[in-house]
Amino acid sequence: MSRWQPNARDRLERAAVELFIEQGFAETTVPQITARAGLTTRTFFRHFADKREVLFARDEELPAFVARLAADASASLSPMMLIAYALETVAATRLEGQRAYLRTRRAVIQADEGLRERELRKLSALSDAINQGFRDRGVDELTALLAAQLAVTVFSVTISRWLDQDEDGEQPLSDLVHDTLRALRSVTADPPEHPHSA
Amino acid sequence: MSRWQPNARDRLERAAVELFIEQGFAETTVPQITARAGLTTRTFFRHFADKREVLFARDEELPAFVARLAADASASLSPMMLIAYALETVAATRLEGQRAYLRTRRAVIQADEGLRERELRKLSALSDAINQGFRDRGVDELTALLAAQLAVTVFSVTISRWLDQDEDGEQPLSDLVHDTLRALRSVTADPPEHPHSA
Repeated sequence: MSRWQPNARDRLERAAVELFIEQGFAETTVPQITARAGLTTRTFFRHFADKREVLFARDEELPAFVARLAADASASLSPMMLIAYALETVAATRLEGQRAYLRTRRAVIQADEGLRERELRKLSALSDAINQGFRDRGVDELTALLAAQLAVTVFSVTISRWLDQDEDGEQPLSDLVHDTLRALRSVTADPPEHPHSA
Repeated sequence: MSRWQPNARDRLERAAVELFIEQGFAETTVPQITARAGLTTRTFFRHFADKREVLFARDEELPAFVARLAADASASLSPMMLIAYALETVAATRLEGQRAYLRTRRAVIQADEGLRERELRKLSALSDAINQGFRDRGVDELTALLAAQLAVTVFSVTISRWLDQDEDGEQPLSDLVHDTLRALRSVTADPPEHPHSA
């Protein structure tokens, strides 16, 4: 067997989530994953620290990716414009075409308490990175914090709607990004005055 | 010692967070907490399942409290009006006057990875309850989901700003709620069109 395995990482990811679904995350071992993928455990550990990392390794890069986008984007972009631009970029370069895999991955995570917590921490780290990205662009503290949390909200709501769709009625992810942003504007445009303060 | 201890719950909470700060959460035992509070471990376990619950017991009721607010509020309130109303109510009835305790509690949570995860899960459960509250009021699925996440964002951002303040410059929590809602409107009112799509 040659040392270089084409698509080893993808094959390991797909084998792992198949097994997690079939027999549960806790019950699945690394040797079972590598047997299913037709690869060695040595190859596995070149790509992932442990079986949990198979589910989260791609996301590890997301905060740094988003921070780079924020640093490189035109200074004239407002926070909401930057959020829209970043979501479109992440959707086009990292998510589009991965829907079947990401649906299965989501089912695995939802079935395990520890994985759900890890997912929440991931979103919290992403929010921190976006917050810092806005601060570095000179955005004030409160706006940066709110915009970062809005970005994560729009991101997670959009992905969850995208993954919920039937195969037939599938809308492109970029359309859903704009739908969600429109809905967000419409919710928040509504006057939030206290009913008794008028 | 009489069986009825006035303010036993408050005394246990305060003793616990003092000890968590002084010597760390992991190092603190229930007998140390009860000794500091001048109460028995029996009394402790009448109020809390374990030492972690001392930090989170109040929040356990929050989803149900917010769900009741949503169910009882006038049907004419829009999602943002309901969010403002609910935040004001929670601020006035559950938070105002507790700032010193809540600051110390936050420091304890931030120092411990497991407690931070628990805090994130708590916010996630709160968001789920608010989402369901909106759905029960007939709000469409996307709006309910976004509004629930916005509510949690405004809630956590406002509390974090309130706890960050110096003792002197202290603004009432209800003012900060309105500040945050105003800032949210101003961020989202900005046209979120893609810069290249015009």
